[in-house]
Amino acid sequence: MSYQAPLKDMLFVMNELAGLGAVNALPGCEDATPETAEAVLEENAKFCSGVVAPLNHEGDKEPSFWKDGNVTTAKGFKEAFKQFAEAGWQGLQHPTEFGGQGLPKLVGTPCVEMLHGSNLSFALVALLSDGAIEALLTAGSDEQKATFLEPLVTGKWTGTMNLTEPQAGSDLAAVRTRAVPQGDGTYKIFGTKIFITYGEHDMAENIIHLVLARTPDAPPGVKGISLFIVPKFMVNADGSLGARNDAHCVSIEHKLGIKASPTAVLQFGDNGGAIGTLVGEENRGLEYMFIMMNAARFGVGMQGIGLAENAYQKAVAFAKERVQSRDLAGSAGPVAIINHPDVRRMLMSMRSQTEAARALAYVGAGLSDAAHYHADADTRAANLAVYEYLVPVIKGWSTEMSENVARDGVQVHGGMGFIEETGAAQHYRDAKILTIYEGTTAIQANDLVGRKTVRDGGKIAKGLIAQVRATEAELGALDGSDFAAIRKQLEQGSKDLEAVVDYVVANMKSDIKAVFAGSVLYLKLAGIVLGGWQMARAAVIAQRKLAAGEGDAAFYKAKIATARFFADHILSQSGSLRSAIIDGSAGVLALDEDQF
Amino acid sequence: MSYQAPLKDMLFVMNELAGLGAVNALPGCEDATPETAEAVLEENAKFCSGVVAPLNHEGDKEPSFWKDGNVTTAKGFKEAFKQFAEAGWQGLQHPTEFGGQGLPKLVGTPCVEMLHGSNLSFALVALLSDGAIEALLTAGSDEQKATFLEPLVTGKWTGTMNLTEPQAGSDLAAVRTRAVPQGDGTYKIFGTKIFITYGEHDMAENIIHLVLARTPDAPPGVKGISLFIVPKFMVNADGSLGARNDAHCVSIEHKLGIKASPTAVLQFGDNGGAIGTLVGEENRGLEYMFIMMNAARFGVGMQGIGLAENAYQKAVAFAKERVQSRDLAGSAGPVAIINHPDVRRMLMSMRSQTEAARALAYVGAGLSDAAHYHADADTRAANLAVYEYLVPVIKGWSTEMSENVARDGVQVHGGMGFIEETGAAQHYRDAKILTIYEGTTAIQANDLVGRKTVRDGGKIAKGLIAQVRATEAELGALDGSDFAAIRKQLEQGSKDLEAVVDYVVANMKSDIKAVFAGSVLYLKLAGIVLGGWQMARAAVIAQRKLAAGEGDAAFYKAKIATARFFADHILSQSGSLRSAIIDGSAGVLALDEDQF
Repeated sequence: MSYQAPLKDMLFVMNELAGLGAVNALPGCEDATPETAEAVLEENAKFCSGVVAPLNHEGDKEPSFWKDGNVTTAKGFKEAFKQFAEAGWQGLQHPTEFGGQGLPKLVGTPCVEMLHGSNLSFALVALLSDGAIEALLTAGSDEQKATFLEPLVTGKWTGTMNLTEPQAGSDLAAVRTRAVPQGDGTYKIFGTKIFITYGEHDMAENIIHLVLARTPDAPPGVKGISLFIVPKFMVNADGSLGARNDAHCVSIEHKLGIKASPTAVLQFGDNGGAIGTLVGEENRGLEYMFIMMNAARFGVGMQGIGLAENAYQKAVAFAKERVQSRDLAGSAGPVAIINHPDVRRMLMSMRSQTEAARALAYVGAGLSDAAHYHADADTRAANLAVYEYLVPVIKGWSTEMSENVARDGVQVHGGMGFIEETGAAQHYRDAKILTIYEGTTAIQANDLVGRKTVRDGGKIAKGLIAQVRATEAELGALDGSDFAAIRKQLEQGSKDLEAVVDYVVANMKSDIKAVFAGSVLYLKLAGIVLGGWQMARAAVIAQRKLAAGEGDAAFYKAKIATARFFADHILSQSGSLRSAIIDGSAGVLALDEDQF
Repeated sequence: MSYQAPLKDMLFVMNELAGLGAVNALPGCEDATPETAEAVLEENAKFCSGVVAPLNHEGDKEPSFWKDGNVTTAKGFKEAFKQFAEAGWQGLQHPTEFGGQGLPKLVGTPCVEMLHGSNLSFALVALLSDGAIEALLTAGSDEQKATFLEPLVTGKWTGTMNLTEPQAGSDLAAVRTRAVPQGDGTYKIFGTKIFITYGEHDMAENIIHLVLARTPDAPPGVKGISLFIVPKFMVNADGSLGARNDAHCVSIEHKLGIKASPTAVLQFGDNGGAIGTLVGEENRGLEYMFIMMNAARFGVGMQGIGLAENAYQKAVAFAKERVQSRDLAGSAGPVAIINHPDVRRMLMSMRSQTEAARALAYVGAGLSDAAHYHADADTRAANLAVYEYLVPVIKGWSTEMSENVARDGVQVHGGMGFIEETGAAQHYRDAKILTIYEGTTAIQANDLVGRKTVRDGGKIAKGLIAQVRATEAELGALDGSDFAAIRKQLEQGSKDLEAVVDYVVANMKSDIKAVFAGSVLYLKLAGIVLGGWQMARAAVIAQRKLAAGEGDAAFYKAKIATARFFADHILSQSGSLRSAIIDGSAGVLALDEDQF
């Protein structure tokens, strides 16, 4: 069975948890009614399940390949991207003035999840274009916008992010690519960029590389990096394509996963210099790149959630079909393995974490919309701050979660999971990149600790914890063991998170290494507590719906049970994380380098 | 850098924790002096690092392949196996009367770890032969022993285990392969076996398949399964090879990992019937197969530990070499990433779990020797019972651990880890089979709960917990924050384990599904508490050595720091596991099948 978009849960989360109604009330979001949103999601689901998902396993078996500087993408990718572009999906969240649909992020996010859930490798080309569009919208000149935005937004062209160099991975201060001004407003770019997703392909007429490079007099480190547009083909004044630029793909990587997505080594300027134009101001490249990065980081979080959903669906289908061993409670013949408690435990773990991460991400999308569209500047700023706190959590936690889910997906399949034909192994391989690119989990955790927690003395974090406590109070008003169990774990979780936030803020100056020894654990703790909070909110709403006799009772009952599982099995890890963070730095830091 | 056997830790564990001295004092183990053992380990390490390890990554890139019924193994495998056999490594733990070295399991186990650490795919052929040898030693007739054992023990031939069929994976009751008596003492075997490791290859003259099948009048289920020897080539009375038997490899699998190890589909009897002889008595095949399985399960645990060690070494080497970003505490230039706290946290997590699992496994090997060689029958029985409790823990926990370690190994490498050339990704792929074959972790957990815990009312488990408490008391007598921290976590861990053992025993009859909903979590809890106990013992011994001024101070200090890390980061998970086991079954079992 191929991926089916989980529309019921997506609509529930979008409407009930992330507040589409409130987003719809924002200026500029009038078109995003619940009815329109539902229609958009349904249409996107058809395209993703019907066109994109069937290409996923085939693209893994026969990946994109390089020959003589050109990349031929996996079978069907070119045609599918044409359909994607023509249907307007690339432009869903982008401004109407550049050919987009202008829908809020909250409506775009489920569509992004579906695309990634269907086929990570395919969806990456769109993710990178989204990032390039965001950067140009923010920092591009009017001329650059006029030239590049519409073709990117309509999927006629695609975009790339060129950060990494062999000696500059997480550490962008080490970027060496040079940009030499030509006196005519253009620059010649010289250097090697690696790990460039869709750096070369055959799915669009042109590729717009956004490249980090240093001008001759630039200061060292990250304050001397500028951002350049370097198109694969030069663009004439009338928008038609000109000469081939001196930016060439010299190879693509042989990777563990996402094999259909070509990962290019790009050589700039080997034949006289690649022509580029500066984006925004000199030496502010990293700032602009972070616009792309933040959009892309949220997108990678959605990749984790989409992949986890796909792995879950595959495991459920197998577990219902595979008959093996008797039921423990003693039926006569062998039963489908979904009846075995440990299979069920794995499925519930996969399901509950996927739902929790989805809920947290969509809530983040709603905050982003308020940060973007709200009429009041202070409200915009307040929402932006919370959204920005959540971005590293959404990226880091959702992707770490997706690795575990993909792993459990293989395990549910038993021996069949280890055979590539089954497809579960592909998820396990694909997932492994998500915790690495667009900033490893450690880089996300650095961001969460430094910019997002310590800088404001933990204010945003504490504000979120206060909201968690309000949900705890709501749970207390409900009868039944499920709500009591969820409340108990959530109360402990919010206490643990608060203690850790206090610890991080208090110790950053005096013992920075100790704080960072626990940074990834803090990110995970924030993920499970805030994800658990969303599951608790979902359970409260589900109970209200059940009490009112509204909607699909089986769905709401399942939501409560899933929230209960999450509380007992995932949220219950908060205590051990807290203890490892607060007491665990001595063991992390004790050895000398030569003792390893 | 290629794998180097961690001899220093292996010798420490073998001598100080697992008690080689006591094993050496057992009748029949007189040759296993500490000096001999050290020499054996050193020699084995040379062979593994020098000959076997260099074939690992190459075998992954150009795996074994099938053509016209024959399998050509990866480059160098045939020659390396010849050397392995000629040096006597296959026979290390097997009886001298059949050409073995007759060394105890405690000395054989580090050698097994090294072989797996060097090259899982290669080592599997030896692991399967070990299992076949064990089964024949226990249940074979004198004639079968005379015919088959020496060639297997000396590596002239190899062995296989044929359990799985398409409809019979974890559920051996579903085995359908037929064995028809021919009236001359032989049987004709008809059926299909899948997932047969080294079911066909070119590394030895003959392959001895041990095959589960049903005789015509056998009762249904597991009580009607018999075990047969089905050689690839018939064996003449003088030991020379006769006709090709009707057992053919029709394909090998395209797998996620261990690609150089051919995983065969074997067809028995398509051309008139494969000739086999019964091992032991009819209908007792499963019992004999479990002899192979228990040996193989312990061996798979060693695979996990060997692979984890290799992944750790690779990550350490990369982390020392890769320069990226400044030191947090503020040095001028960029530093090797081993200086970054989160990299160090991952390395310590990899290291501490590998060391803990090694210690527990070697202690198990020592118990197995006492169970086998001790002069007193009651002492043998008592040691056997503890060893058998530990086997599912060693298999299940060490392999689950190895997945996490291999995952962290990729993560330490960042983007380079995702590129196949680096080699870290191979560990991530290879590791995934270990929690599946020879019984998934859930199957190990079933064994731990049913046969090993409930059957004796938790007696063996409680006996182990009493020993843990003795170590807690020893920790209490030592000064310093490390020992206090280890003691605190170990005390909590032993309390949590005891509570869970009580819960399992008390609820097995009344609520079997609830107990099994937490069975894998119980296995993990047992692993971290008993592994943590070994690390605590190691720390106590290290402290004594330091106080006495004996040996390598840096090694002992690192051991204490590593034990501290394990306590704070791994053992500290005991509380959340206990809570998920005791409170978490409702969430596992709540949904109806159609709610998934």
